[in-house]
Amino acid sequence: MNDFKYTHRVHFYETDMMGVVHHSNYLRVFEEARMAWMRHKKLHTTHAPHTEISLAVLETSCQHHRPAHLDDILTVYLQVKREGARVRFAYALYSDRYDALVAKGTSTHIPMNRELKACRLPKQIIKQLESEPWNETWPSNL
Amino acid sequence: MNDFKYTHRVHFYETDMMGVVHHSNYLRVFEEARMAWMRHKKLHTTHAPHTEISLAVLETSCQHHRPAHLDDILTVYLQVKREGARVRFAYALYSDRYDALVAKGTSTHIPMNRELKACRLPKQIIKQLESEPWNETWPSNL
Amino acid sequence: MNDFKYTHRVHFYETDMMGVVHHSNYLRVFEEARMAWMRHKKLHTTHAPHTEISLAVLETSCQHHRPAHLDDILTVYLQVKREGARVRFAYALYSDRYDALVAKGTSTHIPMNRELKACRLPKQIIKQLESEPWNETWPSNL
Amino acid sequence: MNDFKYTHRVHFYETDMMGVVHHSNYLRVFEEARMAWMRHKKLHTTHAPHTEISLAVLETSCQHHRPAHLDDILTVYLQVKREGARVRFAYALYSDRYDALVAKGTSTHIPMNRELKACRLPKQIIKQLESEPWNETWPSNL
Repeated sequence: MNDFKYTHRVHFYETDMMGVVHHSNYLRVFEEARMAWMRHKKLHTTHAPHTEISLAVLETSCQHHRPAHLDDILTVYLQVKREGARVRFAYALYSDRYDALVAKGTSTHIPMNRELKACRLPKQIIKQLESEPWNETWPSNL
Repeated sequence: MNDFKYTHRVHFYETDMMGVVHHSNYLRVFEEARMAWMRHKKLHTTHAPHTEISLAVLETSCQHHRPAHLDDILTVYLQVKREGARVRFAYALYSDRYDALVAKGTSTHIPMNRELKACRLPKQIIKQLESEPWNETWPSNL
Repeated sequence: MNDFKYTHRVHFYETDMMGVVHHSNYLRVFEEARMAWMRHKKLHTTHAPHTEISLAVLETSCQHHRPAHLDDILTVYLQVKREGARVRFAYALYSDRYDALVAKGTSTHIPMNRELKACRLPKQIIKQLESEPWNETWPSNL
Repeated sequence: MNDFKYTHRVHFYETDMMGVVHHSNYLRVFEEARMAWMRHKKLHTTHAPHTEISLAVLETSCQHHRPAHLDDILTVYLQVKREGARVRFAYALYSDRYDALVAKGTSTHIPMNRELKACRLPKQIIKQLESEPWNETWPSNL
């Protein structure tokens, strides 16, 4: 497993009238974790605004196991792999409230230029992805 | 096919620095469509704040085919079916910009009470779902 | 008074754990109303993405009189005036729940080009603003 | 001056198609800072979900001096005072990009119970506010 993790405290504005984090906000926390991982691996300079490239979102999924509440400290673990011209992230989100899985998710990305045309994956990203572990049964083995 | 559709004009605050609708907002537009369908079928009185029940989100997915831009008129079609104690929605989102599919998505829900415990599906919802068409190849047949 | 009004149904994702619309979302509904007014007056072609100009936000304010709830139909009235190179909007937001004022707000804007440098107000906007009524005691006279 | 400060890194989903942080998100970052200050002063246990009380928002304002961009590290300073039954916060937000003021803002709050009725300020809050400095010319003196 890679040793990266990202933490996010639940903000009041992320809750909804059920008293828990609105499901759309999980995609935003996954994005925060993904961007933090890019910075951690010094890959943030491969995309906008540093270059013309963005990793556009092709697909997302999220499975909810337990609700997250105000002030919970969420910890996101992730793994990442290359799928041809695409990059696939998998996320596992835990809360300090339960010490248990709150949500799992995935996102698939394709590099695009400023005109939103598909382009090549930057070499630094390809190189990094070659050394990233990927485990199909993750995060059951966490 | 059911004849329901929902339209949503893209707001400025829904865009991101790539100049297109942020991917997390698709789940919000799907939610708008889902709630509008509930009202259309007179099922909104089966859930909060009219009753103690909410249709909590268990799973979501979204596939992006084309970007959506400011002021685009998005049209969401949906189909819905019962899966035991759960309800599953599938969404197809089109934009007047392309006259073509922009995104597809799904969401799975389970009824929960105010304490966030799973409970029974309200009878009116069960009855409505019995008469709803579901097509596995949808929306390719739209 | 100008006769423009904009309606917005409160979405589930706009609520927070107090069970009402989160205060930050009022600025978003004001923005929806402002953009709708621009379209209504055929002024939307004066700004991005149709031109290089955006009406950047310099100041906002909002006063909350009553909470807004899920499914409330909010109606926004607005008035607008020129202040030199700036444009000032005032908003009054009512809910069908109370038939009474829910919130008032203002926003002040300055035209900026793509490099975020201040630029001149488009002539069509200046012309429109010359014919817009403005009443300091508004909306008490609504 | 109180020595509290709060930092927030700008997330991708907080930007809009102008390439900068959407103005509505400043109210959210102010809220994050306000809640962090409450925790810092051990006052978070005075409000929901720990008690029935929430500090409902009565008024907000925000003045924008410079735009904030993706990955900017924003630092929020605040001061707070009591105004009868109300609590008033003032915020000053700086970015590491400019080492200069990006935005100023205010929010006024009133304690409300679960039924959204105004109630008394908790004693711990009153006591804390008595010892908080307030400077009308702030943050010009920062």
